[in-house]
Amino acid sequence: MKVVVITSGGLDSTVLLHHHHTGKRDEVRALAIDYGQRHRRELGFAEINATKLNVPFEVANVKSLRDLLPGSSQTSSNVAVPHGRYDEESMKATVVPNRNMILLSIAIGHAIAHKFEAVSYAAHAGDHAIYPDCREEFVNALEQAALLADWIPIKIMRPFVHTTKAGIVKVGDGLGVNFLSTYSCYEGGAIHCGKCGTCVERIMAFKEAGVPDPTKYLDSDYWKHCVEPAKS
Amino acid sequence: MKVVVITSGGLDSTVLLHHHHTGKRDEVRALAIDYGQRHRRELGFAEINATKLNVPFEVANVKSLRDLLPGSSQTSSNVAVPHGRYDEESMKATVVPNRNMILLSIAIGHAIAHKFEAVSYAAHAGDHAIYPDCREEFVNALEQAALLADWIPIKIMRPFVHTTKAGIVKVGDGLGVNFLSTYSCYEGGAIHCGKCGTCVERIMAFKEAGVPDPTKYLDSDYWKHCVEPAKS
Repeated sequence: MKVVVITSGGLDSTVLLHHHHTGKRDEVRALAIDYGQRHRRELGFAEINATKLNVPFEVANVKSLRDLLPGSSQTSSNVAVPHGRYDEESMKATVVPNRNMILLSIAIGHAIAHKFEAVSYAAHAGDHAIYPDCREEFVNALEQAALLADWIPIKIMRPFVHTTKAGIVKVGDGLGVNFLSTYSCYEGGAIHCGKCGTCVERIMAFKEAGVPDPTKYLDSDYWKHCVEPAKS
Repeated sequence: MKVVVITSGGLDSTVLLHHHHTGKRDEVRALAIDYGQRHRRELGFAEINATKLNVPFEVANVKSLRDLLPGSSQTSSNVAVPHGRYDEESMKATVVPNRNMILLSIAIGHAIAHKFEAVSYAAHAGDHAIYPDCREEFVNALEQAALLADWIPIKIMRPFVHTTKAGIVKVGDGLGVNFLSTYSCYEGGAIHCGKCGTCVERIMAFKEAGVPDPTKYLDSDYWKHCVEPAKS
């Protein structure tokens, strides 16, 4: 199948790219979307991975959306990045309004323009209830719309939707993913902070998968505080 | 209701803005979307109209999508603008892949960010079968997705969906719309060409509505050739 893979340079979407391409399942185009993330270090890794795999790679520059979709720590530099577990109330600050629909609609347009048949993204079993647009009913409705967006139906694929992040690490390990070419930290520094939601999630996923984590963290012990939520 | 109105400075969406605002139906924010249209004359009119009505106005700059969504005369300068009736096969060159889903998803994100309850766009009874994303089933699916995109459901409004373009001209006339501050021509010149699909449609809508058309056209007779399709 001809598949547009939405990739960010993060762990999940890099494994996804390998799943489709290295797994020899599909003909792939990689699409990264610059929606004005506070940092763009991830996007650099997206390009490195696509180039290494010899996959066509493009960036959709929609970063002016940063001004239109205010209030998220992912796009506003004046909203603090929350620390700790990813599924806490505080993580709501990381929600970009309607991000998934925007990303998918652009990817679907890209697929139509290139006569591709599907778009794939790295939704996974660990996607959290704080993100309304990760809900099954939402994606089902959007899938219906995608099938009708053009005369040729476009499929939305989510091969990892029943896979945990630890499971994704295992899949990536099996496909020879270089995890050092993936980036997760919301802080955006050269070295992963080890304290933000995605860093903690990343560390715990490697532990759970039993795969050695090659990542360097500024604080490699903070995650231990997150295993058992602190008593209030 | 609090409504984000998608406006382009074209005739339909300008009347739509007046419908919600001047008709005192809703609290309105106007959102124009610069998706790399070949010309941006329309967007200037969008701003003029919103400013005159004292409605908050913003432009979503997603014009880099021009490179990602190739092949349309609306975004590519090397694809010729077709002349004649809007519902002809040749008009397929004006299709921007997945445009409606992209525009709506951005507007929905904007609505969520501002705690607005709905987005409204100027779909009308004259929308043509050449645009797959004007199909009822498509919009229904997208409406379902919008209701689930955030914890607070976002409604998609299409008040003109059963109104012809002539009907929209009548509504606009009743609301005191200054039609000189609206722009339709696909060619993008200072004066409407009178020959492209939207110009012909505009001319015929005024005639059918029985409302005087204040617009100046470079060729104000060409439309007559379109009333009866030429025999082949």
